[in-house]
Amino acid sequence: MEYTLDYFTGLAEDAIAGISYPTTAPGLYEPIQYTMASGGKRLRPALCMAAYAAVSRREPLEIAHQAIAVEMFHNFTLLHDDVMDNADLRRGRPTVHRRSGQNAAILSGDAMLTMAYGLLAEGAGSRFANIFEVFNHTAMEVYQGQQLDMEFESRTDVKVDEYIEMIRLKTSVLIACGCTIGAMLADAEKEVCRRLYDYGLALGLAFQLRDDWLDTFGDPAVFGKEIGGDIANNKKTWLLITALNEAPEQITPLLSNKLDREEKVSRVTEIYRSLGLDRRCDELAARYAKDAIAAIDELEMDATARAFFKSLATNAATRNH
Amino acid sequence: MEYTLDYFTGLAEDAIAGISYPTTAPGLYEPIQYTMASGGKRLRPALCMAAYAAVSRREPLEIAHQAIAVEMFHNFTLLHDDVMDNADLRRGRPTVHRRSGQNAAILSGDAMLTMAYGLLAEGAGSRFANIFEVFNHTAMEVYQGQQLDMEFESRTDVKVDEYIEMIRLKTSVLIACGCTIGAMLADAEKEVCRRLYDYGLALGLAFQLRDDWLDTFGDPAVFGKEIGGDIANNKKTWLLITALNEAPEQITPLLSNKLDREEKVSRVTEIYRSLGLDRRCDELAARYAKDAIAAIDELEMDATARAFFKSLATNAATRNH
Repeated sequence: MEYTLDYFTGLAEDAIAGISYPTTAPGLYEPIQYTMASGGKRLRPALCMAAYAAVSRREPLEIAHQAIAVEMFHNFTLLHDDVMDNADLRRGRPTVHRRSGQNAAILSGDAMLTMAYGLLAEGAGSRFANIFEVFNHTAMEVYQGQQLDMEFESRTDVKVDEYIEMIRLKTSVLIACGCTIGAMLADAEKEVCRRLYDYGLALGLAFQLRDDWLDTFGDPAVFGKEIGGDIANNKKTWLLITALNEAPEQITPLLSNKLDREEKVSRVTEIYRSLGLDRRCDELAARYAKDAIAAIDELEMDATARAFFKSLATNAATRNH
Repeated sequence: MEYTLDYFTGLAEDAIAGISYPTTAPGLYEPIQYTMASGGKRLRPALCMAAYAAVSRREPLEIAHQAIAVEMFHNFTLLHDDVMDNADLRRGRPTVHRRSGQNAAILSGDAMLTMAYGLLAEGAGSRFANIFEVFNHTAMEVYQGQQLDMEFESRTDVKVDEYIEMIRLKTSVLIACGCTIGAMLADAEKEVCRRLYDYGLALGLAFQLRDDWLDTFGDPAVFGKEIGGDIANNKKTWLLITALNEAPEQITPLLSNKLDREEKVSRVTEIYRSLGLDRRCDELAARYAKDAIAAIDELEMDATARAFFKSLATNAATRNH
């Protein structure tokens, strides 16, 4: 066993390929298989299995079902988010509602959520009640985060703290949930579970802030998608919310969409730079990465495991794609 | 304690009014409260609590959370079904997606499903793993039923057996789930749990077939809604599917919607009568009601409890609204 993201991602991919689906009404499951086969970073199941292995020194695949439960929940939220956003593409492929229709997307999403619960229970034995509680609480928080994100769209007075709370709920708690469930399944002490939760939480915040940064300041050649999409769509990122709070008179006139895309992106980016937001966003992501590392730095685990968790946190805040 | 539907419905209403909702992102919960307050027969939680009380001779409210979990799941499916059907009204009130928008309907529905799981766990202790398994399996079956129902819309070759299987999945298994969970929480023997499951299953089939019957042959003055809606919409009911199988040359030309509503309803009803479908649908519902009664007739319970379950089954197949 090696502590690399590729290794754990590979385990997750194999486990996903091995999921068995009921045979009644196969039309219900085809969109689920399509969604689960769509790749992505597999960060949540990878961290879940890594936490388990680091704490227990046992085989990560022993908790493959629970790791995949977290990934299936994540993919369920993406599927329904795509319906809500009326998105055409997800990871370069047509979204489920474009491909199979909106009703299939809603219903198969519902089935994914129930399948996620089923996977969570599979083989969990006496540990099920405890991991269920964390998972269920986390799921409610993710919906709360999505609700806040939707409400922010029509508000111009969102504070930076509110934004951080929204991304904590929408993105970070599920990563934290994966980490802590891995530790719980390894029968780790409460303090260890809590510290791995905090690690995932801070990692998620670093990850999301870097996402915001990359969409504006990333290198198009490395980033893999067009730069400026968030600006073009007036997406309420950390950058836009901070600019709206600090220089509303400069930024607000640019949001009306009277400018063509290129000019809008260029002028908004200029304002961001003049406010130092490129550097400050970077610093904030780095601070969360540091928090993540601090959370696990004193936990008892092999040096290779610790190095893995550390490098993942650093990478979340510095990655270029 | 009295064994009447009104009594158990009253308990369910009180329990629903007492549900506590998180305070973060209240916009997420308002549509859930609206949906849960919309009345309805409360058949599932009533049967869940009645089964518990009949088997254990204990207070039905001891399992209020689990009973409401089943009702919340049921209401979640209605909420998402209404989005899929683009329905305007539910129980005489605007549907959630008409009132709060489609995105709120999708997201709040997701949150309802997760809340249902939370309620199922609340206070269930060591019995949770077992009732969770039944509940989760049932949820998957309900989605399968909805999937089949959607697939039937574009098919003209649906067999009667397929229809019965579809309504078993879409409607009956959840009623059966409520009954058997009530028995399981009372620590009933496996055979008792199985029989109460079979009772709910047969009751649900009787109930749905009577629903089909009432929409065509009901008394408008008593039924409470317009007669003939299923015919006007070419809804694949037991009546239409049987007619399509037995007299396709007569029924098919009437489905093209070239006739005005009144004439269509009148001519299709005439064909149904000429095939004896009014009587045969009635007889089939009565047979399922009899099956339901047979399932519980030899179980050990108070005479008042037995009479309650029996009258509910009879009523399912003979009710006029």
